[in-house]
Amino acid sequence: MEIYHAENEYIEDLKKRALLPEGFKCAAAKIDFIPEEKPSGDPLPMNLSLILTDTPTDSFGAVFTKNRFPGAPVVIGKKRLSEKEIRGCLINNKISNVCTPGGEETALNLCSEMAALLDISPETLFPFSTGIIGWKLPFEKMKAAYPKLKENISGDSILPVARAIMTTDAFPKIRNTSIGDGMIVGIAKGAGMIEPNMATMLSFILTDIDMERETLREILKEVVEETYNCLSIDGDQSTSDSVMIISSRKKPAVPPDQFKKALLGMCKQLAEDIVRNGEGTEHVMKVTVKGYISWKLARSLGKAVINSQLVKTAICGNDPNVGRIIMAIGDYLGNHTALPLKTESLKIKMAGREIFRDHQFLLNQELEVYLSGYLKERQLNSRIKGYPQHNKLVEIEILIGEGDTKCTVLGSDLTYEYVRENADYRS
Amino acid sequence: MEIYHAENEYIEDLKKRALLPEGFKCAAAKIDFIPEEKPSGDPLPMNLSLILTDTPTDSFGAVFTKNRFPGAPVVIGKKRLSEKEIRGCLINNKISNVCTPGGEETALNLCSEMAALLDISPETLFPFSTGIIGWKLPFEKMKAAYPKLKENISGDSILPVARAIMTTDAFPKIRNTSIGDGMIVGIAKGAGMIEPNMATMLSFILTDIDMERETLREILKEVVEETYNCLSIDGDQSTSDSVMIISSRKKPAVPPDQFKKALLGMCKQLAEDIVRNGEGTEHVMKVTVKGYISWKLARSLGKAVINSQLVKTAICGNDPNVGRIIMAIGDYLGNHTALPLKTESLKIKMAGREIFRDHQFLLNQELEVYLSGYLKERQLNSRIKGYPQHNKLVEIEILIGEGDTKCTVLGSDLTYEYVRENADYRS
Repeated sequence: MEIYHAENEYIEDLKKRALLPEGFKCAAAKIDFIPEEKPSGDPLPMNLSLILTDTPTDSFGAVFTKNRFPGAPVVIGKKRLSEKEIRGCLINNKISNVCTPGGEETALNLCSEMAALLDISPETLFPFSTGIIGWKLPFEKMKAAYPKLKENISGDSILPVARAIMTTDAFPKIRNTSIGDGMIVGIAKGAGMIEPNMATMLSFILTDIDMERETLREILKEVVEETYNCLSIDGDQSTSDSVMIISSRKKPAVPPDQFKKALLGMCKQLAEDIVRNGEGTEHVMKVTVKGYISWKLARSLGKAVINSQLVKTAICGNDPNVGRIIMAIGDYLGNHTALPLKTESLKIKMAGREIFRDHQFLLNQELEVYLSGYLKERQLNSRIKGYPQHNKLVEIEILIGEGDTKCTVLGSDLTYEYVRENADYRS
Repeated sequence: MEIYHAENEYIEDLKKRALLPEGFKCAAAKIDFIPEEKPSGDPLPMNLSLILTDTPTDSFGAVFTKNRFPGAPVVIGKKRLSEKEIRGCLINNKISNVCTPGGEETALNLCSEMAALLDISPETLFPFSTGIIGWKLPFEKMKAAYPKLKENISGDSILPVARAIMTTDAFPKIRNTSIGDGMIVGIAKGAGMIEPNMATMLSFILTDIDMERETLREILKEVVEETYNCLSIDGDQSTSDSVMIISSRKKPAVPPDQFKKALLGMCKQLAEDIVRNGEGTEHVMKVTVKGYISWKLARSLGKAVINSQLVKTAICGNDPNVGRIIMAIGDYLGNHTALPLKTESLKIKMAGREIFRDHQFLLNQELEVYLSGYLKERQLNSRIKGYPQHNKLVEIEILIGEGDTKCTVLGSDLTYEYVRENADYRS
């Protein structure tokens, strides 16, 4: 159980997790500018980040959003997956460079200018942008900050980048794991517009473990499917979601299944961190669907529950209104599948207590009071920024059917704070 | 344009719309009780309502929720659709009688006891319940209120029933229309758990126009598809949603297409009223999708936009964050369809102003300021209960493809007040 009482406690833990694997360096720098589209004239502070390998590597991969209006960096990144070797990533927050006039050219020029400064080939940098959709990147301002960014390059810690890629995130997110003679470190930014594929808006995973490109990509795809793609904060999939993995190949190889297990464990933690840091999140829901026809259908059913506005608001209010869970399951089964199902087999547990079986609720005053206390005890204070107070989860189990499938999805409740942040996001 | 400054102005209008067609009577009565499952011991006031025809009629129909855990009244109602003749509806609010021990028996007994008191056949009453899922109906308390309910039977106005069926609704909803020598009147309760089929949680439509049963049912089905099924407040489809239509057959028949047109017009108004009265609604969004492959796909696409939490919160904040509309469309196209599409053809308008074309946003400061003002001017104050302040809409047009299809969907923004109502619903 992780429990933090103040930001510095959390940051101390992060520093321990933030060590860069061998063969990597990184940097971050700030700029201020006033977007020309902004109704008010206040400046918008933006961060630039750089992740670099010491030497070119052919071992890298990425998974991108399925949104049909992807940002310019996604369009470019997809093409650069076929480059022979790369050197790293150039990232900005605040504006996502999606469907703007000249957006792709701007992203290409940003990479070229940085590559010229670093004396590397322009095609070896992957661009990433996150933030407001529809506004233009301030190319000249960004370029002017490049010397400062170069000056900041260091091999000490990934913490400055984990901070710099944040938008509405309340705290930086870093997880790491040792494996063989090397390590894996991952950072993520999340917060909003998260679901249903590529939950993380941006995540960067670095390892020094030697791994052949195709194996690395295959493992990344599988791990993303079981972690980031099993979480949802608001059911909205962004135009920029990207997970990138790079190996510097500086440490001896390990068996692929061992690497996958380590990566899976780390990404599961990062996925939980992302939901815990969702916009306004006060409860992290963990819904496990067991016995259903297939793992993919189990995931869809689980997501129907965690994405139900009414389930989300009940959890926010510490109200064990379990009737809404049945509503959400019944809505999904009745409207989104044509599959036969003996609904009689359905059992639901919350906090390990059975609340529904044999087509009937098992509610009474004692159980209602118990569940309400359970929800209160697992609440996060969304107004405390800078660190997560604890990593407790609200556990819901849905047993449906006789299969041996099991899928766990993570979701956020829906709170006042979510509405406040998103109603006022650009002002 | 309807504009109201106080509750009495609105109620005066409702009274004019509330006239019962020939051959109908109705009644409402209150009871107080303490649900045994309720964590706190405060009483829950419940309303009973009755809609009756003067004489048995074979001309009636209903459309019910597709939720796979329907309430006991829905299960019974579906069977009673094959009755030869009916006499009316017995309705309660506050508890929806879904998946509770003995729930179906309770609903049957409630109808039988009422039928005995009225000296009619028990199978000629349709039961309806709306409210909290999972709690039990207070059978004895309800039965004890029957004499009072009978005493209140009157042919004057449907307003008492339009009020009595409300749960979190802020105001009663009644629409009517004249046709031939007769009329149609409809009432609805809505507010939350509304989508994607059978948007109205409960709606009752009464007419004196003579209409053969199968024609009436066919017309109802088509009209529901184009009205209630084109709106969404929170994307959640309830376990109790039902629309019932009854003809007393007291006035001469009109051509079916004329009847359908009148019913469609009335239900469109009622659908708008439901969204305007959604829980916490401060903007009613009207999204029109033109040119897409089929009407049904256009509806799905439109709903993807009105159900996006991020679109909804931006509209709530009077923030014309149109990037989120593109995100929602791209998310839908990328994740929910495998259909080929020239995304280049996409054009989007808000408030009649073009905001996106040729794969690019057309944003500038003047347009942002204009759209923000437009949203402010169309806002409802969700804290004013008792009446809708106006019937203005936020109009968004999505032009996609070259077809001549056109589908309009209605949605609600997502506000603090929605979260407050739903986090605290049962307390």
